[in-house]
Amino acid sequence: MAKRKRFVYFFGGGKAEGKATMKELLGGKGAGLAEMTNIGLPVPAGFTITTEVCELYFKNNRKYPPGLKEEIERNLKKLENVVGKRLGDPENPLLVSVRSGAARSMPGMMETILNLGLNDKSVEGLAVKTSNRRFALDAYRRFITMYGSTALGVPRERFEEEFDDIKERRTRVRLKKRGRIVDTDVSEAELEELIARYKQLFKAHTGQDFPQNPLMQLWGAIRAVFESWMSDRALTYRKVEGITGLKGTAVNIMQMVFGNMGENSGTGVCFTRDPNTGENIFYGDILMNAQGEDVVAGIRTPIHLNDLKDRMPGVYRQLVDVRKKLERHYRDMQDIEFTIEEGTLYILQTRAGKRSPQAAFRIAVDMVRERLVTRNEAIMRISAKDIEGLFYPIIDPLIPKDELRKKLFATGIAAVPGAATGHVVFTAQDAEKWASDGKDVILVRKETSPEDVGGMHAAKGILTATGGKTSHAAVVARGWGKCCIVGCEDLHIDTDKKTMSVGDAVIKEGEKITLNGTTGEIFKDELPLIRPTQSEEYNTLMRWADRVRTLRVRTNVDTPYDAENAIKLGAEGIGLCRTEHMFFDTEERRLAIQRMILAESQEARKNALEALLPMQRYDFIGIFNAMDGKPVTIRLLDPPLHEFLPHTETDQKHLAKALGLSFNEVKRKIERLKEANPMLGHRGCRLCITYPEILHMQVRAIMEAACECKKIGTKVYPEIMHPLVMDRKELEILARETRKVAEEVMKEKGVKVKYLVGTMIEVPRAAILSDQIAEVAEFFSFGTNDLTQMTLAMSRDDAGRFLTDYMDEKKSAILKQDPFQSLDQEGVGRLIRQAIKLAKPVKKEIKIGICGEHGGDPPSIEFCHVNRFDYVSCSPFRVPVARLAAAQAAIRWPQKTARKKAKRKT
Amino acid sequence: MAKRKRFVYFFGGGKAEGKATMKELLGGKGAGLAEMTNIGLPVPAGFTITTEVCELYFKNNRKYPPGLKEEIERNLKKLENVVGKRLGDPENPLLVSVRSGAARSMPGMMETILNLGLNDKSVEGLAVKTSNRRFALDAYRRFITMYGSTALGVPRERFEEEFDDIKERRTRVRLKKRGRIVDTDVSEAELEELIARYKQLFKAHTGQDFPQNPLMQLWGAIRAVFESWMSDRALTYRKVEGITGLKGTAVNIMQMVFGNMGENSGTGVCFTRDPNTGENIFYGDILMNAQGEDVVAGIRTPIHLNDLKDRMPGVYRQLVDVRKKLERHYRDMQDIEFTIEEGTLYILQTRAGKRSPQAAFRIAVDMVRERLVTRNEAIMRISAKDIEGLFYPIIDPLIPKDELRKKLFATGIAAVPGAATGHVVFTAQDAEKWASDGKDVILVRKETSPEDVGGMHAAKGILTATGGKTSHAAVVARGWGKCCIVGCEDLHIDTDKKTMSVGDAVIKEGEKITLNGTTGEIFKDELPLIRPTQSEEYNTLMRWADRVRTLRVRTNVDTPYDAENAIKLGAEGIGLCRTEHMFFDTEERRLAIQRMILAESQEARKNALEALLPMQRYDFIGIFNAMDGKPVTIRLLDPPLHEFLPHTETDQKHLAKALGLSFNEVKRKIERLKEANPMLGHRGCRLCITYPEILHMQVRAIMEAACECKKIGTKVYPEIMHPLVMDRKELEILARETRKVAEEVMKEKGVKVKYLVGTMIEVPRAAILSDQIAEVAEFFSFGTNDLTQMTLAMSRDDAGRFLTDYMDEKKSAILKQDPFQSLDQEGVGRLIRQAIKLAKPVKKEIKIGICGEHGGDPPSIEFCHVNRFDYVSCSPFRVPVARLAAAQAAIRWPQKTARKKAKRKT
Repeated sequence: MAKRKRFVYFFGGGKAEGKATMKELLGGKGAGLAEMTNIGLPVPAGFTITTEVCELYFKNNRKYPPGLKEEIERNLKKLENVVGKRLGDPENPLLVSVRSGAARSMPGMMETILNLGLNDKSVEGLAVKTSNRRFALDAYRRFITMYGSTALGVPRERFEEEFDDIKERRTRVRLKKRGRIVDTDVSEAELEELIARYKQLFKAHTGQDFPQNPLMQLWGAIRAVFESWMSDRALTYRKVEGITGLKGTAVNIMQMVFGNMGENSGTGVCFTRDPNTGENIFYGDILMNAQGEDVVAGIRTPIHLNDLKDRMPGVYRQLVDVRKKLERHYRDMQDIEFTIEEGTLYILQTRAGKRSPQAAFRIAVDMVRERLVTRNEAIMRISAKDIEGLFYPIIDPLIPKDELRKKLFATGIAAVPGAATGHVVFTAQDAEKWASDGKDVILVRKETSPEDVGGMHAAKGILTATGGKTSHAAVVARGWGKCCIVGCEDLHIDTDKKTMSVGDAVIKEGEKITLNGTTGEIFKDELPLIRPTQSEEYNTLMRWADRVRTLRVRTNVDTPYDAENAIKLGAEGIGLCRTEHMFFDTEERRLAIQRMILAESQEARKNALEALLPMQRYDFIGIFNAMDGKPVTIRLLDPPLHEFLPHTETDQKHLAKALGLSFNEVKRKIERLKEANPMLGHRGCRLCITYPEILHMQVRAIMEAACECKKIGTKVYPEIMHPLVMDRKELEILARETRKVAEEVMKEKGVKVKYLVGTMIEVPRAAILSDQIAEVAEFFSFGTNDLTQMTLAMSRDDAGRFLTDYMDEKKSAILKQDPFQSLDQEGVGRLIRQAIKLAKPVKKEIKIGICGEHGGDPPSIEFCHVNRFDYVSCSPFRVPVARLAAAQAAIRWPQKTARKKAKRKT
Repeated sequence: MAKRKRFVYFFGGGKAEGKATMKELLGGKGAGLAEMTNIGLPVPAGFTITTEVCELYFKNNRKYPPGLKEEIERNLKKLENVVGKRLGDPENPLLVSVRSGAARSMPGMMETILNLGLNDKSVEGLAVKTSNRRFALDAYRRFITMYGSTALGVPRERFEEEFDDIKERRTRVRLKKRGRIVDTDVSEAELEELIARYKQLFKAHTGQDFPQNPLMQLWGAIRAVFESWMSDRALTYRKVEGITGLKGTAVNIMQMVFGNMGENSGTGVCFTRDPNTGENIFYGDILMNAQGEDVVAGIRTPIHLNDLKDRMPGVYRQLVDVRKKLERHYRDMQDIEFTIEEGTLYILQTRAGKRSPQAAFRIAVDMVRERLVTRNEAIMRISAKDIEGLFYPIIDPLIPKDELRKKLFATGIAAVPGAATGHVVFTAQDAEKWASDGKDVILVRKETSPEDVGGMHAAKGILTATGGKTSHAAVVARGWGKCCIVGCEDLHIDTDKKTMSVGDAVIKEGEKITLNGTTGEIFKDELPLIRPTQSEEYNTLMRWADRVRTLRVRTNVDTPYDAENAIKLGAEGIGLCRTEHMFFDTEERRLAIQRMILAESQEARKNALEALLPMQRYDFIGIFNAMDGKPVTIRLLDPPLHEFLPHTETDQKHLAKALGLSFNEVKRKIERLKEANPMLGHRGCRLCITYPEILHMQVRAIMEAACECKKIGTKVYPEIMHPLVMDRKELEILARETRKVAEEVMKEKGVKVKYLVGTMIEVPRAAILSDQIAEVAEFFSFGTNDLTQMTLAMSRDDAGRFLTDYMDEKKSAILKQDPFQSLDQEGVGRLIRQAIKLAKPVKKEIKIGICGEHGGDPPSIEFCHVNRFDYVSCSPFRVPVARLAAAQAAIRWPQKTARKKAKRKT
């Protein structure tokens, strides 16, 4: 065995055992403290227990690893020596803070205990040493509260009740000098009484005396910090934020310094730049004569940093110096916590500061200009969320939180970010009708189906009672960047009465609501929305990103309007144009496709298709014009035919009448088309194997459109894509028919158009046999939505029922994330890597793309980059995110090593 | 380029260019003729055009390969030299037959043309040469008929009409000497008139004169034979018989010999042993003064071989000699065609004779005893169909065909062979009720669902209007060896009126019908059934098979009764015991599981499970007792919960009442459990991840049963199997819980039981990550039903709509067979091979089995053998088939090379 691992890292006396790069091991806070110590900043001394200890603690059934005790005691001794005080010393006691700190910031999620080391004796030593008995008693009171509530679960309110009780008594006695009394007004005697009451409360609740042994206090606090890592609050936070792969939290034990030792003391937080705008100004607040927790509690109003300049010019200059030093050192905007103890400045923490999306871009671009960071570093500083935040409308952030809370009606799953407000309607038809009357509507449905697409498009926002982030509603809405909340399970919709309710609260048709698609909140009434604008810095940074990335970014769109929009957002082509959506556009088109589906003979089917041909051609002309020579991948008809047919008797009767058929006939045919598992049924290219005339019509429409565009000088580059292919022979037949029709049309029109014929890889068998399929296909587009469904045997529409259990970190932690949101790189990823590995030797030049939802997900995009995809394709509103993610992946995995990583992972 | 391929193989003059082993190239007939020539039998001379020419013909758009013409002409010259006659010679014409012959026998499916070479001149030469002008004219007439109808599509009936016309005239004139006149009565003059009429008919129909050039005749005939390979008739036959992978048909051109040259001529067919019983006697018929086609037509009654002994003792002795020689040479029972031309014996064909299942066993075992073949060879001679034929009841074969035809009501897909007869009922409940009244019933349903299982079990046979060979009805019925016909699409079922109809024909509830599950025919009324018995030879041969095979054969059963039955049929364990079927057994059990599913709280669910525990334990005790120490793989609950709940309002109301819930509540809950794609939904082990209490109950029931059995001295070896696993972590959780409960129970009972914990591999992701999963699983059971569904994205229940198009040899030929019947070795097989390759290095001793429908399919069993599975598991009635197939695979792939093949295929 090698030397035992070190569990504790010391910092203080001008040097530290850790450093900034040890974030995984020491947590963000611990690494920061070590680093700051090393660069000579005034950091109180202390030591950090590593995140590995936390991991071992939970692995070994909540037992500490052997050797930890000795190591902590040794470091404590060292700390006492550096500070010159002893823990629990009745004359000159060392007080310490015990703080959590994981590798990623989880603000407010875990525990902190201050003033540890105080007991009935040392509190008097502190009183003497500071010549401030009131201060010492107050510190003791605070410690009992924090220790009691966090380490032993005494409800914090119980402590507050006792305090309130005493304050109230005083208020009564002192005849309300200036309203309610504040903490600092409480007398020494009252504090003594309070401490006695607190200790009683502690005993009543825990059955034991408040521990007087400071070492026992220390171990209790350490355990409390570790336990807080697995608290429901922390688990939920990590789940919501998608934080995974951490070992645990570190524990930082550090000498206490006090901002509440009089008017030349204070505590504050500052940002090295403005976190809202990104402007390069020193930004922060300070609270004089106060401890850190007072700042957080927000009881007293802090003063501005500028005021400090006048009050304590020396300290201010020192702080400005720290600002400069830390920003130069970390080369990023910092969020710094500091305390002034009787005129001496201490830096307690530094970390990369949270910032608004706008500020993120400004800071990144400014820092490049200031030569603080490189362009690549600037690109790496931007997150997908920053970009999202720039594009979607949001509820005016100036609305008071209280008002929002009062208007909250329900909460669902946030599917597409942004906000929307409008009148509630409960059917797609109503949505279309109301919208055509010029009204903004929110479409509320139990779930949506392709039939609803018209109404969904007409609505400003969509709300469904069922479904997950990749349900039909979510996927379609995301394509349009339209605010959408799904899976609001508390919602009861009564479509007959046209109402929706949560418990007793009822909202009727026509009433207004507001959706916050970023949080999943649904509010009663209309709330004011604002739409952020894109800054010059955004454009600059995205230009840099485009230069560095090697992956192309295409978009999934079905209309010329969306195509134009996507180009504005930076799309370089269409990776998926779903022809079926075109059939839902108007009543006329719907009828035409329905007539085709219900045709009894090939003859009748061909006639119906003939009617559809000019409509499709018209659409393709529009799309080709919008894309002007950029590649356009068109997928032939994909969904099972029954999806085009009405489900209700009323609609079926209507259809029968329109087609001149008997209702019974229509009903029977619809009945016969029903499938037990439509996902695995008669759909995709199987439709064209059974009815080649569908392929003929669609290919003809594409190629006629292409020829007409070319004739008038528009460049066109169609890529015809067959969905759900599973076999080489199958694709051979489809490709042969496709090329036959294409050549025919070009001959008729006397125009030559370059085009490709390829396939989606979305059936596992196609991936498994990709070497065979590559012989026929000119391109592969991995349809990772369906590929995930089949590979995991998991229907997107039904997974909601168990996926939460699978992702629950506490219960099972089987899946780290929703595989429909972020590619399952382990399983589906292995299949894809293998498919590429098989296909490339067969056809080196084969074009490889992805067109599932994953095309807009940064980790999945990185996967595509590493595995040498040619492009990703995503919803228009994800295009900027994809451009950025592709650039970041290219920076992380420069081309040569990209190949290496791909190999290693296979 | 190497030397050009040879297209034509000559035989005659005592030696041949081909031989028996060239069956693929020369077809069965051509290879047989060559072989017989080589071993010195009296075979007319001729030559064979290879099957490769047929393949090239269709590949190159119906063009012959270059060089063929010259090669045929050269061989024709050779034939003329050997025979000493010339084709078309007006004085001494050579006549030839042109016959098809593929590598596998397709009796009556393709074309034959006799007497080719006759024209207006050579017919006179033949007349002179044979001194029999009537004979020559008759031969010419026959030739025109055959050539006209097969090579140029003149309807055969038209020729017959002309002949009838003349015969009728004669009958009228001759005053009906003895009823209707027969062919041989027709005079020379009348034949001349007939030939003239035929030639007119030919010209009227084709627009050209009947070809007088014999070479033209020959090419026309060759083309006709090739075309017949792709005729609808032949395509259908190959599809029905599952014949695939052939290149095409060969063409045999052979000197004509005539059995109709007088009373010392004749033609016949003989078997070297009795094809019905297998007895070692010479068996056959001969028709004197007749041509082969007369035998086939069945117009005249042939005489027995024994009669030949008296009439032509020399020829008879020669024939007996041929019998001996051929059987010794081919070491198999032969079906020999011969012709006697004026006292000279010619052998025209020999092939392995078709035989009854009983005969197959007797001949195989007898030949081993006669030291003609080895035991292994005997095993290879038996087919799966032979075994099936031994076990299922059949409709008495003595019923006249005419009667059967009159009673035929409809035809569906033959799903489970055998026959059944009984009263028609239309609901599962009725089936149970009628059966408990002692009536035999046939359950007729549109489709079946797990709810129907009770009624299905009570019925003698099952008929459904929808579904394919692997629909629910078929799979369940197959498990019981119960006659079943599915997908009878013409059938209209009116469950309200309790009738079923095909067109105007209606059958009411209670009326009797008879199903022939071997052919898919449904007959009105009750027909007499007989059940074949197993012979001593069957037992002997199966004993040999068991000794040679290395693959174990287990069975899929859910009840002690079926388990006992399976053991009698040779099962060595249970590979799949589906616990959910146990819940449908009685009303009480159904209610208990329904109560569990509808439980609102974990508490209520646990209570409901508590009630199920003793029932499951009881079942497991029964099964363990029946298996007495043989391994029993028990799969925990698999189907989605909604499958256990009623679909109709009436049943839902009934259930609500029974559970003391409101109807609306029950309805809403059932509604909420509905899934868009149940196959990919909340089922399998996902149920136990969500509701671990289900796992706890089931494992407890298994282990309590095992302990109780062991206590009373019964050996037990349970293997607990988790379905639908897709992830290592998932299985880790399940296995941990399983072992925890198992250890608990064993501790309580004070008994130690050996048991395994393993998983199905039925989700592609599990196969892809099998190395990870093997770390946790003690065994893998490939669930190839679901694995096929997911890998091909093809729902068994829905595939009917397009699978026929995919298997249609003419339309697409994408799939060679139904992937749910025979494992898709190319796609799913590659995945399985890869999964094994990944898993074995991780856990060398991991037990590997298969429990899908494929476990009873011989090619799939061979795949399992080659890939070193430990066992296959199939329905009890497939166990003998699996034993045989495993033995045949072991003979074909002895252990050492088995590994090599597996490697090569990966």
